[in-house]
Amino acid sequence: MDAVPHVSFLTDYGLADGFVAACHGVLLRRGVRALDISHLIDPGDVRRGAAVLAQTVRYLPVPVHLAVVDPGVGTSRRGIVLVTPGGMLVGPDNGLLAPAAAVLGGVRAAVALVARPGVPATFHGRDVFAPAAAELATGTAPEALGARVDPAGLVQLPPVLARVRAAEDPAAELEAEVVLVDRFGNVQLAATGDLLADVGLVPGRRAEVQTSTAGAPLRMPVGVTFGSVGPGELVLYVDSAGMAAFAVRDGAAASRLGLAPGDVVTLRAS
Amino acid sequence: MDAVPHVSFLTDYGLADGFVAACHGVLLRRGVRALDISHLIDPGDVRRGAAVLAQTVRYLPVPVHLAVVDPGVGTSRRGIVLVTPGGMLVGPDNGLLAPAAAVLGGVRAAVALVARPGVPATFHGRDVFAPAAAELATGTAPEALGARVDPAGLVQLPPVLARVRAAEDPAAELEAEVVLVDRFGNVQLAATGDLLADVGLVPGRRAEVQTSTAGAPLRMPVGVTFGSVGPGELVLYVDSAGMAAFAVRDGAAASRLGLAPGDVVTLRAS
Amino acid sequence: MDAVPHVSFLTDYGLADGFVAACHGVLLRRGVRALDISHLIDPGDVRRGAAVLAQTVRYLPVPVHLAVVDPGVGTSRRGIVLVTPGGMLVGPDNGLLAPAAAVLGGVRAAVALVARPGVPATFHGRDVFAPAAAELATGTAPEALGARVDPAGLVQLPPVLARVRAAEDPAAELEAEVVLVDRFGNVQLAATGDLLADVGLVPGRRAEVQTSTAGAPLRMPVGVTFGSVGPGELVLYVDSAGMAAFAVRDGAAASRLGLAPGDVVTLRAS
Repeated sequence: MDAVPHVSFLTDYGLADGFVAACHGVLLRRGVRALDISHLIDPGDVRRGAAVLAQTVRYLPVPVHLAVVDPGVGTSRRGIVLVTPGGMLVGPDNGLLAPAAAVLGGVRAAVALVARPGVPATFHGRDVFAPAAAELATGTAPEALGARVDPAGLVQLPPVLARVRAAEDPAAELEAEVVLVDRFGNVQLAATGDLLADVGLVPGRRAEVQTSTAGAPLRMPVGVTFGSVGPGELVLYVDSAGMAAFAVRDGAAASRLGLAPGDVVTLRAS
Repeated sequence: MDAVPHVSFLTDYGLADGFVAACHGVLLRRGVRALDISHLIDPGDVRRGAAVLAQTVRYLPVPVHLAVVDPGVGTSRRGIVLVTPGGMLVGPDNGLLAPAAAVLGGVRAAVALVARPGVPATFHGRDVFAPAAAELATGTAPEALGARVDPAGLVQLPPVLARVRAAEDPAAELEAEVVLVDRFGNVQLAATGDLLADVGLVPGRRAEVQTSTAGAPLRMPVGVTFGSVGPGELVLYVDSAGMAAFAVRDGAAASRLGLAPGDVVTLRAS
Repeated sequence: MDAVPHVSFLTDYGLADGFVAACHGVLLRRGVRALDISHLIDPGDVRRGAAVLAQTVRYLPVPVHLAVVDPGVGTSRRGIVLVTPGGMLVGPDNGLLAPAAAVLGGVRAAVALVARPGVPATFHGRDVFAPAAAELATGTAPEALGARVDPAGLVQLPPVLARVRAAEDPAAELEAEVVLVDRFGNVQLAATGDLLADVGLVPGRRAEVQTSTAGAPLRMPVGVTFGSVGPGELVLYVDSAGMAAFAVRDGAAASRLGLAPGDVVTLRAS
């Protein structure tokens, strides 16, 4: 492993201003490097930031994850440090960190960052969160940065929908919300591969899919990967994060299906 | 501090070609790392590049700042090294480096980079500026790279407008140009927080704002931060670079106000 | 040179998801850093990825180049390691690596990566290619990662068009395909500067250019650089990769000429 301490870093700051660099400079001042996840989360899109963070952290061998998607900066929201078996997370207490904390083994302790008088209230990434992350990455104990708070009081995002319903038809239905659409137009659902299997949607079977925008249900194979179908064809599969997803081989499922994060689809084996 | 020498790096090269990487390779060859500021400055937009650089350098603990927004490549413009108390800057002599040099304490010495025969005249970032920055970051004296020149002869950008005018009304007016619009749509003006205070525009007061696109003046509170107003409301505040700025909480001031860099607004306390 | 081993890295993954970071994490786990080339290659655009890689590798002092533009993931395409005098390349056997391998001195040996059972078939960058690149960068021999294969069997991209034709007119014509359009709108052709010289297109001469979209041929100077012509004017020159290219000083040649990758132009000295 590289001897220099790293922290992962995710924001909605974009790449056309100097905001990310200012935070990198704060880290560098303490000898810490950033492993950037993304800085192109849409402004204020806490849900998307939380999903990208949660699906990426398990691959990042870093002691601290720094995430700032913070539409509440300057309001009464707290800044927090979450301590998990798999690492620490630093960011606003608005739900952004919670799914990733669960992936890393669950919150063992939480610390509310002490408000620092005189700190401008518009760029906490640079003035509050990056300094805290750098301290943690270089050995400072979380308790030195603020007061212990009850993890039960942390802000949680509304749960994403993924549930099995028995229907009149003998086959059970799976209702699932769209979580993410990636650059390739692949549509990721809130249902895991295990939940798909629970309703018989395994490779070799066919799926019947009802989207809110389609009149009649669509039919498609359940495959292992994009190559399980021919060019231009839809496939239901389990993606690289272990979640149910739609793809179009050599195409874009999101536009083919007219789906975006928050939409709900119903799936059953046919 | 990290033992590897770093240079900051800002260009208009974009991230879809190999230009930035080629410069990173030139630096790496000499054991130097880049701390990227932005490579998404609009092609040739020296003013924006200069503003982003000037507002970021104070947070970057690096000995050399490398900036290349260079529409004049291949013309008679010089390449320069500026020496300031806070670090060195390398780039084209077209005004790009000047505001950042002022932030770093002012130009103590300037060196015009020697023209290197046989160097292709289209990619000076890779062939002239990055090699010079790597040399400076690893101990070469600026004078070894070219001839001393008079700082008074350096190209300066046209000054941005920020001035107080006494008006017929007892309240003084502040005329200020829009400098930057960031990813969140916040509109940064050329006026400092101090200049705002000079005309009575401090938190708790209300501002009357005339934009060239508005018929009647707009009224908004002067606040400390985005959270000083309700969702969807305009606020005048001092941003994280110490400059007067407009924001809309959970919205975008630039589109709300119809403002872009170069526009002029008039402000007074009401 | 930096003591930490580096691999260069090019994909079509984009910067809004966690895919690039997951690969960076895989490399970091073995103490290896990435020197990113671009992650904004259009999804599946193997030709563009191959061109950007080939034009950048000679400036990157790294032992391994990792490139993943892989529309065939999950099909029968192989993953390969190419060994050249100038370094190793890792990626899909779909032509992506071939032009860069030629730049690095040609393929001396090729290894087909062993298929790893149980590896999800949708994210080979993280699960197959980045681990292989990290192994190679830290001393593992290519043969330890799979079986030797005959370089003659590697997939090659269709050749780009660049040829000289004698015409009825005494001046020879050069037919060349558009290879790349960069962020500045410069249009790069498949013809080298040497081929331009072969047909008399050298600085100081004028060129007659027929694009498929233009009725009458266009005339423009052959220059050394953008500054060889006045603002707004077209110029034919040899770019920083040694290739023939069109530019408009302070403008964008691609839109002026209506050209995109794959289009064919004809040039002659006039």
